[in-house]
Amino acid sequence: MTSALDAALAQADQNLDGSIARLKTLIAIKSISTDPAFDSETRKAAEWLVAELNGLGFEAGLRDTPGHPMVVAHGGTETGTHALYYAHYDVQPVDPLKLWHTDPFDMTLLDAPDGPRLVGRGTSDDKGQLLTFVEACRAWKAANGELPIKLTIFFEGEEESGSKSLPAFLEANKAELGAADIALVCDTDMWDRDTPSIVTTLRGMVADEVTITCASHDLHSGMYGNAARNPIQVLAEIIASLRNPDGSVAIEGFYDDVAELPAEIKQQWDDLNYDEAGFLGAAGLTQAAGEAGRSVLEQTRARPTCEINGITGGYTGDGFKTVIPAQASAKISFRLVSDMQPDKIRAAFRAHVEARLPPDATVTFAPHGGSPAVSVPTDGELLRKAAVALKDEWGNEAALIGSGGSIPVAGDFKKTLGLDTLLIGFARDDDRIHSPNEKYDVRSYHKGIRSWLRIIAAFAE
Amino acid sequence: MTSALDAALAQADQNLDGSIARLKTLIAIKSISTDPAFDSETRKAAEWLVAELNGLGFEAGLRDTPGHPMVVAHGGTETGTHALYYAHYDVQPVDPLKLWHTDPFDMTLLDAPDGPRLVGRGTSDDKGQLLTFVEACRAWKAANGELPIKLTIFFEGEEESGSKSLPAFLEANKAELGAADIALVCDTDMWDRDTPSIVTTLRGMVADEVTITCASHDLHSGMYGNAARNPIQVLAEIIASLRNPDGSVAIEGFYDDVAELPAEIKQQWDDLNYDEAGFLGAAGLTQAAGEAGRSVLEQTRARPTCEINGITGGYTGDGFKTVIPAQASAKISFRLVSDMQPDKIRAAFRAHVEARLPPDATVTFAPHGGSPAVSVPTDGELLRKAAVALKDEWGNEAALIGSGGSIPVAGDFKKTLGLDTLLIGFARDDDRIHSPNEKYDVRSYHKGIRSWLRIIAAFAE
Repeated sequence: MTSALDAALAQADQNLDGSIARLKTLIAIKSISTDPAFDSETRKAAEWLVAELNGLGFEAGLRDTPGHPMVVAHGGTETGTHALYYAHYDVQPVDPLKLWHTDPFDMTLLDAPDGPRLVGRGTSDDKGQLLTFVEACRAWKAANGELPIKLTIFFEGEEESGSKSLPAFLEANKAELGAADIALVCDTDMWDRDTPSIVTTLRGMVADEVTITCASHDLHSGMYGNAARNPIQVLAEIIASLRNPDGSVAIEGFYDDVAELPAEIKQQWDDLNYDEAGFLGAAGLTQAAGEAGRSVLEQTRARPTCEINGITGGYTGDGFKTVIPAQASAKISFRLVSDMQPDKIRAAFRAHVEARLPPDATVTFAPHGGSPAVSVPTDGELLRKAAVALKDEWGNEAALIGSGGSIPVAGDFKKTLGLDTLLIGFARDDDRIHSPNEKYDVRSYHKGIRSWLRIIAAFAE
Repeated sequence: MTSALDAALAQADQNLDGSIARLKTLIAIKSISTDPAFDSETRKAAEWLVAELNGLGFEAGLRDTPGHPMVVAHGGTETGTHALYYAHYDVQPVDPLKLWHTDPFDMTLLDAPDGPRLVGRGTSDDKGQLLTFVEACRAWKAANGELPIKLTIFFEGEEESGSKSLPAFLEANKAELGAADIALVCDTDMWDRDTPSIVTTLRGMVADEVTITCASHDLHSGMYGNAARNPIQVLAEIIASLRNPDGSVAIEGFYDDVAELPAEIKQQWDDLNYDEAGFLGAAGLTQAAGEAGRSVLEQTRARPTCEINGITGGYTGDGFKTVIPAQASAKISFRLVSDMQPDKIRAAFRAHVEARLPPDATVTFAPHGGSPAVSVPTDGELLRKAAVALKDEWGNEAALIGSGGSIPVAGDFKKTLGLDTLLIGFARDDDRIHSPNEKYDVRSYHKGIRSWLRIIAAFAE
């Protein structure tokens, strides 16, 4: 296998420009899944992937759902290790557009002190990561003619909008997708520039939209000011009540099902000598805002949180309008850990809000999906092989680490397909995913492709 | 004078349809002064008024300013009582447009249980009110050939956007505008459907826009959630801190210069048997939200307030985005009474905010104008004549009352021109000014025109 792997690695190196050109083509397709205005673009991204995979010899097809289509492809050997590779082809909205330095859909190669980077929406989350594996398959096939393991490839187009069609799709295609031995998910970060990671815990998430209504219509503050209940004031007071002075979340029962980090994991994390100042400094911050007495690593990867993701009410244009609006609303999400249950947290949040409504204020809620936290066993044979392959590529041992993000598909794979997942990704924590000027290091893309070649070779042995 | 007045009143009655048609023409000109996109429309409204006034025999001209133009016209007798009539031709923005039942710029005549109404942006505030006086001049001239008093007409196009050019314009044209004996301002309400009012106190206003910045760019809540300071949370906590549990404003020194209502005025207001439930019910509300223990009348007309007029931050589109935004901002205004000074209140507010900034949060402020409260003497000869004229038209004594709104021009007329102002208007408190579906009762328009005819005749005697 060594010579086949070497040939494939050389092939990947020689064809990096082609791999970058294909990523540019995929980035140009505006697959913003949360916004119906981009539905046809989102479908176009799926169709492009089907064509690429068929071109590589996979049997690939587009599968319609009530939402955006899935892409499913089969290929490789008939026997041996069978991996299910998952990534998502949809991206986040790009606003505020004025903060981008380049066109988010015209991927641009820019130089930076730590090496060249690819800038554009989805370069890191998740189109660049998605293609690392596809380009690895391309390099292997170009060098050796046939893939050495059995592969099912599965791409989703609703990851950024709540994966609404995923559970039913997995249930309906349990036999086809669940036949694999292991799932591979490429949607996570490196530990640092030189240290790969395998993510072993993921936070879950619950998102809710809360709208406070007071008057039947917008009022003039000169006429009604003081006497009319102001829904922005009500909403602000409710949001203020969500956190205690020590930074903890004030919702009753919020921490009931939160386990403390096991001592040995805490020790392992402490030993990583995490650069808190560097992590916060990359965002222009100097100190952790959340729960007092918890490290940044623990706060962001092993503790639940409550974040206000958006708020709007009244006049928000240029100039001034002395209005008392009828409504104000906020988008609020919770990251979950351990055994926290999405339904229970959603109910506790709603009860917290309802208990704080003053007279003449009413509330409506709109749910935006929920998923529990996920843990992956850290003692499997395939995980061990992947860890060795990653060390061979990067020189450092892979860190087995918790992630602060939420990748509900790993939980769904376990629950519905009975599959464990290896979460291996090459993103960096300064990639500005979900933000203007999202980027993916060329190094991440290139060595990501090479990493998958090594993992494929390792799984074949 | 009686036969001349009767002839003019008859003329106004016969030509009501024409008066309504002219209001429809003026409403169709989108003079939204706060939004630069409508600058040419705003100028067009001024030009239309100049043409109308010249057509009525006034010497009217458009006067440029650094902002929107002023309209100044002279006419009537050479001697006798000289009135300066002021109104404003600009209007508020129309959003949210989807809440309008008709096109806000295509004035529509609709029937309602209490009589027909004219629906559109500016029908009440202030184009309809503005035209009551112009149409009164038209009727008098059509019936009698010449106006019986001396008139200076003065229209502003920046009232809804802070009157930025007004003080310098008054200062520069002090001799021309200050030659009058009295100012008449038509931008206020009736007491109720059958009771006219002369407003004798107006609240002042200070408006500020506050922007909280934490991170250097938007962050992903999965990666940074808990550890990164969230500016929406910070802003919400600051807004929540602006009011005490008893509904009073919590800014230090806020009430220092607020005088209690004099006992005799309080008695007079109590005697008006104000319909609190009706006033709140028209807005879909059931109880006063502001300072505990103060009547609605006192809260809205004789007490200062702090209102959040707009708030925005993070993702506010359809769907959900798990972002921790870099910034959040709010538009906040204060209505002032008695001797409260705008600069002092603005400074106290800013100090309140700055004292509550957590680590990694910074604040910037953008001022949006300020004016102190205004009081008008209630014992003048011209006020007495106007009160009699109003009683003749409406059958009930005019209420001498405080208004919750802010009409800074009355203060500027006193300070710069040395003129007292009679604030007489025919709007109703259910006119939805500044809101979708703004309306002006046909009765207000018609009897408003007739009221001015009676006041003009009274001033001529």
